[in-house]
Amino acid sequence: MATSDPRTAAALVIGNELLTGKIQDANVAVLGKTLFDLGILLRRVIVCPDEVETIARDLDELRRSHDYVFTSGGVGPTHDDVTIDAVAAAFGRRRVREPALEAILRRHFGDRLTEAHLRMAEVPEGAELVVDERTRWPTVLVGNVFVLPGVPKIFRRKLAAVRRRLGGGKPFVSRAVTTGSDEGELAELLLRLVREHPAVAIGSYPRWSDDGYRLTVTFDGRQEGEVEAAVGALLAALPADQIVEQGSEL
Amino acid sequence: MATSDPRTAAALVIGNELLTGKIQDANVAVLGKTLFDLGILLRRVIVCPDEVETIARDLDELRRSHDYVFTSGGVGPTHDDVTIDAVAAAFGRRRVREPALEAILRRHFGDRLTEAHLRMAEVPEGAELVVDERTRWPTVLVGNVFVLPGVPKIFRRKLAAVRRRLGGGKPFVSRAVTTGSDEGELAELLLRLVREHPAVAIGSYPRWSDDGYRLTVTFDGRQEGEVEAAVGALLAALPADQIVEQGSEL
Repeated sequence: MATSDPRTAAALVIGNELLTGKIQDANVAVLGKTLFDLGILLRRVIVCPDEVETIARDLDELRRSHDYVFTSGGVGPTHDDVTIDAVAAAFGRRRVREPALEAILRRHFGDRLTEAHLRMAEVPEGAELVVDERTRWPTVLVGNVFVLPGVPKIFRRKLAAVRRRLGGGKPFVSRAVTTGSDEGELAELLLRLVREHPAVAIGSYPRWSDDGYRLTVTFDGRQEGEVEAAVGALLAALPADQIVEQGSEL
Repeated sequence: MATSDPRTAAALVIGNELLTGKIQDANVAVLGKTLFDLGILLRRVIVCPDEVETIARDLDELRRSHDYVFTSGGVGPTHDDVTIDAVAAAFGRRRVREPALEAILRRHFGDRLTEAHLRMAEVPEGAELVVDERTRWPTVLVGNVFVLPGVPKIFRRKLAAVRRRLGGGKPFVSRAVTTGSDEGELAELLLRLVREHPAVAIGSYPRWSDDGYRLTVTFDGRQEGEVEAAVGALLAALPADQIVEQGSEL
């Protein structure tokens, strides 16, 4: 399935509630960090409304241009849960009822089971069910598209459950140096580091807090030696009293 | 500038730090809520890396298909701040130094001013500077694209500063009803409400908390009477002991 090196991923985050500001997304950061630790680059995220045509069009484009795609949201039993329809449309497949999912629903809901519940047993034809002991409900995988729920707690649990399907790559390494230096004063030095360490992605993030102004410089790469060399070059060039903190997190 | 009814918007959120999960975005929810209250529909959000070509391509597509576009991030003085370059590329314009911005930088940095700082005085040719007493630094507006910074505190301040440029529309109204009913049990009723109240966007959001399972149904629309009618129809159909809360927020 995966072909790029490093492997690439995209996310399609589905839900009117995010676009109207009712809810702040929490899944993209968790996904990005999880993939980063697995050596997979999250390259693109699209947030779109609960519309079959929009989701299907975006999904089709994302699945063709990335090794993995993760959808978040729209998998419940109500009218605004249209992700499965859209995944089916993106792959040109029918929706079919999956007996294994139907059995779980019947066990869980018993006499309270409705036709709407049974919609949740439908998947695009040919979908794979990723089973893991940590989740009662298998994760639907269609081609290279993992269909995950939007509720953050369940999203995280499902992501952990499919993690083993994504393993095997060389993880990224990240280091961070925080200074009191001004970004404008450091810009020229950072540009030199970027040129001298092409295998390292260098980022520069200012923030203003109660402690005053701080600038954190991050170094990401797959070769730990190269990342450490770039960090060393920054530390060597900075006045010692300007170095506030060193670590692995922004 | 604006032509659709309701007006539409898109956001382009720029930054490797979001895609690698170093930081969780906080700007999209604020933007979505602000636009919703102004009667503008945020239709699409793209999160992309710090790459001029990628940003320019996305921006060009978004600005042509929406009434407004808001960018977040990438506006500082370092190598990874490429948003202005990308906006210029998307509009096919040169970067020019803006005397008003240069003057602010010279006043602020004095003797410490560097060439890198002066990059922040460059804007796409023909850009408008939106001035507001709440922010020292004007907001760059190119065509229908508002260029906002990524740091959440400053993003919010700038968004407040450009708000008057977006006024005049009919705001959306939102109501929420929270019940203890199961989503599957309610699905059929909700589908009927969706059909009977086509001017109202109805959403269904389950959550599991310490209080147990809760389902919040939201009703969004531009006609308060129609929104209230849809809410009333739900309340009339629900058993009274299933209604946990009524309000305007999810």
